[in-house]
Amino acid sequence: MIVEMRTGASREEIDDVVLKAKSLDLDVQLNLGTDKTVVALLGSNTGQIPTDVFAVLPGVENVTRIMKPYKLASREFRHRNTVVDCGGVKIGGEKVVVIAGPCAVENEKQLMLAAEGVKKAGATILRGGAFKPRTSPFSFQGLQKKGLELLAMAREQFGMPVVTEVVNPQDVRLVSNFADMLQIGSRNMQNFALLTDAGKSGRPVVLKRGFSCTITEWLTAADYLLAEGNNQVILCERGIRTFEDSIRFSLDISAIPVLKRNSHLPVIVDPSHAAGHYALVPAIAKAAIAAGADGLLIEVHPNPKEALVDGLQSLSISDFIRLMEELRTVAASVGRRL
Amino acid sequence: MIVEMRTGASREEIDDVVLKAKSLDLDVQLNLGTDKTVVALLGSNTGQIPTDVFAVLPGVENVTRIMKPYKLASREFRHRNTVVDCGGVKIGGEKVVVIAGPCAVENEKQLMLAAEGVKKAGATILRGGAFKPRTSPFSFQGLQKKGLELLAMAREQFGMPVVTEVVNPQDVRLVSNFADMLQIGSRNMQNFALLTDAGKSGRPVVLKRGFSCTITEWLTAADYLLAEGNNQVILCERGIRTFEDSIRFSLDISAIPVLKRNSHLPVIVDPSHAAGHYALVPAIAKAAIAAGADGLLIEVHPNPKEALVDGLQSLSISDFIRLMEELRTVAASVGRRL
Amino acid sequence: MIVEMRTGASREEIDDVVLKAKSLDLDVQLNLGTDKTVVALLGSNTGQIPTDVFAVLPGVENVTRIMKPYKLASREFRHRNTVVDCGGVKIGGEKVVVIAGPCAVENEKQLMLAAEGVKKAGATILRGGAFKPRTSPFSFQGLQKKGLELLAMAREQFGMPVVTEVVNPQDVRLVSNFADMLQIGSRNMQNFALLTDAGKSGRPVVLKRGFSCTITEWLTAADYLLAEGNNQVILCERGIRTFEDSIRFSLDISAIPVLKRNSHLPVIVDPSHAAGHYALVPAIAKAAIAAGADGLLIEVHPNPKEALVDGLQSLSISDFIRLMEELRTVAASVGRRL
Amino acid sequence: MIVEMRTGASREEIDDVVLKAKSLDLDVQLNLGTDKTVVALLGSNTGQIPTDVFAVLPGVENVTRIMKPYKLASREFRHRNTVVDCGGVKIGGEKVVVIAGPCAVENEKQLMLAAEGVKKAGATILRGGAFKPRTSPFSFQGLQKKGLELLAMAREQFGMPVVTEVVNPQDVRLVSNFADMLQIGSRNMQNFALLTDAGKSGRPVVLKRGFSCTITEWLTAADYLLAEGNNQVILCERGIRTFEDSIRFSLDISAIPVLKRNSHLPVIVDPSHAAGHYALVPAIAKAAIAAGADGLLIEVHPNPKEALVDGLQSLSISDFIRLMEELRTVAASVGRRL
Repeated sequence: MIVEMRTGASREEIDDVVLKAKSLDLDVQLNLGTDKTVVALLGSNTGQIPTDVFAVLPGVENVTRIMKPYKLASREFRHRNTVVDCGGVKIGGEKVVVIAGPCAVENEKQLMLAAEGVKKAGATILRGGAFKPRTSPFSFQGLQKKGLELLAMAREQFGMPVVTEVVNPQDVRLVSNFADMLQIGSRNMQNFALLTDAGKSGRPVVLKRGFSCTITEWLTAADYLLAEGNNQVILCERGIRTFEDSIRFSLDISAIPVLKRNSHLPVIVDPSHAAGHYALVPAIAKAAIAAGADGLLIEVHPNPKEALVDGLQSLSISDFIRLMEELRTVAASVGRRL
Repeated sequence: MIVEMRTGASREEIDDVVLKAKSLDLDVQLNLGTDKTVVALLGSNTGQIPTDVFAVLPGVENVTRIMKPYKLASREFRHRNTVVDCGGVKIGGEKVVVIAGPCAVENEKQLMLAAEGVKKAGATILRGGAFKPRTSPFSFQGLQKKGLELLAMAREQFGMPVVTEVVNPQDVRLVSNFADMLQIGSRNMQNFALLTDAGKSGRPVVLKRGFSCTITEWLTAADYLLAEGNNQVILCERGIRTFEDSIRFSLDISAIPVLKRNSHLPVIVDPSHAAGHYALVPAIAKAAIAAGADGLLIEVHPNPKEALVDGLQSLSISDFIRLMEELRTVAASVGRRL
Repeated sequence: MIVEMRTGASREEIDDVVLKAKSLDLDVQLNLGTDKTVVALLGSNTGQIPTDVFAVLPGVENVTRIMKPYKLASREFRHRNTVVDCGGVKIGGEKVVVIAGPCAVENEKQLMLAAEGVKKAGATILRGGAFKPRTSPFSFQGLQKKGLELLAMAREQFGMPVVTEVVNPQDVRLVSNFADMLQIGSRNMQNFALLTDAGKSGRPVVLKRGFSCTITEWLTAADYLLAEGNNQVILCERGIRTFEDSIRFSLDISAIPVLKRNSHLPVIVDPSHAAGHYALVPAIAKAAIAAGADGLLIEVHPNPKEALVDGLQSLSISDFIRLMEELRTVAASVGRRL
Repeated sequence: MIVEMRTGASREEIDDVVLKAKSLDLDVQLNLGTDKTVVALLGSNTGQIPTDVFAVLPGVENVTRIMKPYKLASREFRHRNTVVDCGGVKIGGEKVVVIAGPCAVENEKQLMLAAEGVKKAGATILRGGAFKPRTSPFSFQGLQKKGLELLAMAREQFGMPVVTEVVNPQDVRLVSNFADMLQIGSRNMQNFALLTDAGKSGRPVVLKRGFSCTITEWLTAADYLLAEGNNQVILCERGIRTFEDSIRFSLDISAIPVLKRNSHLPVIVDPSHAAGHYALVPAIAKAAIAAGADGLLIEVHPNPKEALVDGLQSLSISDFIRLMEELRTVAASVGRRL
């Protein structure tokens, strides 16, 4: 941590900073410039000390953190890539994994048609929402437990592991009983009570990025899961909020290489929620694989026109089959396979 | 809702839109232009129908919502200003209400000194965090139940109602037993499970704006509280995330007049979390009152240098006393009083 | 400047950083931590050295600038507030200055009615656009030279100095011949060719903030004007681009106290372009004065319904008269006068 | 254009809207709902009429534009893809074009080494800045005319067309004499005086996206070039400003498919300015091609450590050679070639 003193800060003010640092067991090195004094604070846990502790002291102009605030998710903590196992499917290895299915589980027929279609096309994990976090209380909130049962039925019938979202800490146990992998949605990325309970569940967890959270905040949220001893965590980029209005959320393509440099966790991309429109999904999906993503999460519906939720961003099964063929050649061009 | 067809859309495609609208009990009026056909869909509940239902149909270019997606929070639903009663203190009336206290309850001495100080200065509600949502799992998470007990003790001793944050649906009952008013934090504005339970609690609720949520999303989240029959809801603007880096969050000053036009709910402002630095708090606080806010939520600490959380944004008691004097004259200049 | 080396950086890599720093006449202080080495570079001109010079060297993790990149606009460079003189009207002193008039000069009658109205209401400088930067080439581009002549006529008739925008370096001389003060618009804040010529003109300059530029970039742009020896520079906050869509641009209210801390230049606020709607102008104008602004730039039109440009954000003369009365009491409440 | 009246708007207010529309030669269709009246205004030029014209009328709640404000750049105006010819190199056809070279021309040796290197690696157009728009007046501003002469020399020697930036309308003729293609930088995307003169030059123009401009604003700016009869326009996505701070600008990957749907102009991507760091360039470059970009603009320097400008984002020649090989396989995977 670097503490920059104001021009003309007194000797006493500098001493106060040094004393505070020593009380926190930090090493202190003074840099006395002609104009300003800069105090370097060194120690292995400075990432976890709030900058406010020093910024609030008289005579301090500014405090800059050098250590990152996340720890367990960092590549410095673990050098080798983490490979997550979701019901036998490996995520984070050489193979690019495609997770597909409807936004919401609506009924048995819809889910079974979707599962059959995405499996034939080459998807290896089935997705489907049973608990739906909706911005309006008057919208369809999902089939809840009935939806979980249908997902379990689809898993049996098609032999694919399933992932589904959990939105309430008290449902973590229930969802874990039915699903192979839990998903934490964008609006819950900083729902720390939910993160803690999901971390304890023992299930692998897909942690979607908060749509206005920095990568640093995202990895710090991942630390909540990892701190519970659960190292089966997947990061899912799904678009961030910007001023651009031609798309629902702007997919942050550079998040992929940035995460690969800074973290050991697998990275997947959800082009459907970013795009909000089926016509934009293929370009984003191909870009994600070219940029190094370990997988994709794609919404597919047997009949998008009748979808209860997010029909516009869902691919039909025939569109999905076509996209999977394109994705195979893109994956091969960067040394991966689907 | 306005459905704009693509140039050259076929008669059949237009008919499909009309049929779908009729199946939803909407009135339909066709506008046949030289280049494009535009279909107006009219009805009292179009705000609650997803635009996707039409956007997904072949031949549709674009769908624009005209009715707002929120209902109960709208001024169209209720014309007169809602006045909230928090333990006898009215919020939303002529008087500007100042809620003050420490970010986190740390111990008895700290809380009592803070309560005594803010009461003397003229604050009428005490704030203090017992459950702290922290971005890192390695940071201080609050005193939890012990913190609630201290808040209740301060209420008895100083005769001020207290407000505190709740972060987990399963704690709503516990927090309601101790506090006069619940606070939903920025990161939980779209934690719909928490909103539903807070709405059921019967307690008045301060709903902080998600730091990247639009005003429309905020009022739609308020609908979750109101839909449970709880009309004691206060909206709290606390800064939004922008590209500007000289401040922690950019306070959205225009949110105040926008909310006053579109909603009947009281509006308060938290300058402390927006600023992130005590030196910026007074200017923002005065601006908020001049712009028409019904109250302020200000962090005050008896010794900011020793604060466990957010010391840099906390005012000392003497700074707070000085600010309250300034706020009195600003309130008077816009026909209010403190 | 603080250069943070990667964990495990070699002695050679550290030496390279030191050598490069010495070649730039910087003082170097090494901070050898247990995990990382941090190199502090000290000198009076580090604000003007690009961080890339060091970031590109092998073994460097990150470079943090401590000195600000702007110099002449900083309060460290000049402690006392600059007071700008625009045709005898002082901006930056005790008096809050209101600049008002139509967005575009449309014809003689419109401008004279506007000038008469705003003068009676208490405005002391007249604004009006002759060269209009429009987002579409098919929109009205302003009366250009004819508009300048009308502005000069209004100045004579009503005895008020005038300010108008210049958009092309080759027009700076022409505009300077007619106007008392030049305005650089938001889209030209980083048009460095224009800034250089405006700086040379000898006229006072209102520098509007680029709608997506940070305060640091804004003050660095002001350095272009100041570097030409022109110290008559006024900063005008006019709203920034954010995700919020209830308003055209989000007025950055905290820019006012931030600029007052970091710069000696006067700060004014344009509520009209931020709001985009007349109904939001009064609340923002009052907030700006309460937060410490030295002036306002408000669009007023004798007949907003017939305005060629931006009619929706213009106040009628009667609305402006009412607002001026309210502003007088708010100014008094913070120790200023109109 | 859709004009939504307020609930309870009077017959007279509706009539005023109709009259105003007829005065602008628009067709009017009334939609009388139970709650609200909605007026549809139809005509071929509604995209060029400001919404304010109606929004300012009494009784109007909101006005929504349906026609886009840009015209000449739209795919509706021209269905077939435009192919731009830059000194014999076609941009917008089957072949993906790579434009490469140093950020700034520094001296003869540097430029010739760069030109030789990028040509060998397979780039077909040389880039290099002679006029540099710099955020600080104290930074290196480019070699200006001397830089143009060196670019012309490199063109002769290596037989590659060159592109360079122009920043001042009065330099358009000079730059056109030396360069095969002009570049308008991000900070000048809405410098309409410069656009008009560049449009008149007869040279093909690369129009970089303003870093905070929407795609709609970008295409409307392109209309300024096209309105001068110059249809040789290339759009260059170079990253937008967001809250994310791990990268200099967030590359908007979805801009590529959005532009391909809405415009006939070729689209290229500048990964270097977005990334700000060489290590992120390859992933973004590959993603851009996979998403359908027609070309790339990449900074390459023979010795990035000694670069005067933006060294950190420049690839060395050996890194560039390696990247070109990877790009060839990615291009082939989406049916293109380099």
